Amino acid sequence: MTKLDHAQIENLLQELDGWTYANGSIQKSFIFKDFKEAFSIMTRIAFEAEQQNHHPNWENVYNQLTIKLNTHDVGGITQNDFDLATAIEDITSKG
Amino acid sequence: MTKLDHAQIENLLQELDGWTYANGSIQKSFIFKDFKEAFSIMTRIAFEAEQQNHHPNWENVYNQLTIKLNTHDVGGITQNDFDLATAIEDITSKG
Repeated sequence: MTKLDHAQIENLLQELDGWTYANGSIQKSFIFKDFKEAFSIMTRIAFEAEQQNHHPNWENVYNQLTIKLNTHDVGGITQNDFDLATAIEDITSKG
Repeated sequence: MTKLDHAQIENLLQELDGWTYANGSIQKSFIFKDFKEAFSIMTRIAFEAEQQNHHPNWENVYNQLTIKLNTHDVGGITQNDFDLATAIEDITSKG
């Protein structure tokens, strides 16, 4: 698992929709219809994260969800973060 | 729904285990065995929150969960926050 450099991160971010790099994480915020919709999406992401054995730092209040991804073991961003971000994009874009 | 004053908040906190008042919220952090256990507990809390129609501000990473409760509508703490905190204590203390 290799720590990606800034140029690699910026390149990979361009393949995602609305993710940014800040404070050592790639992150995105989402607004859903209500709490039930937000938590339903979180549940689908939770199963995906567990399957990838890579887990988000995420914060929710009512219909708002902010997800931050980084790889603790290398103190930075790895392909694992982009793999999980891609899965999250897939889940959230399906509605 | 009445905004509680500081003395009322401190009194009610004494009926809970390990909750503190800080930055306009009552809050507590939990450590679970792993992500699956953390998210399972979150799911039980989510159903309770939805039933009470009162929702937490919560942040999770792997086995760690921090919950902050306040009542947006009054800009402070109400009995609703303590009702949800009590339900959370019930859920988390059952293991």
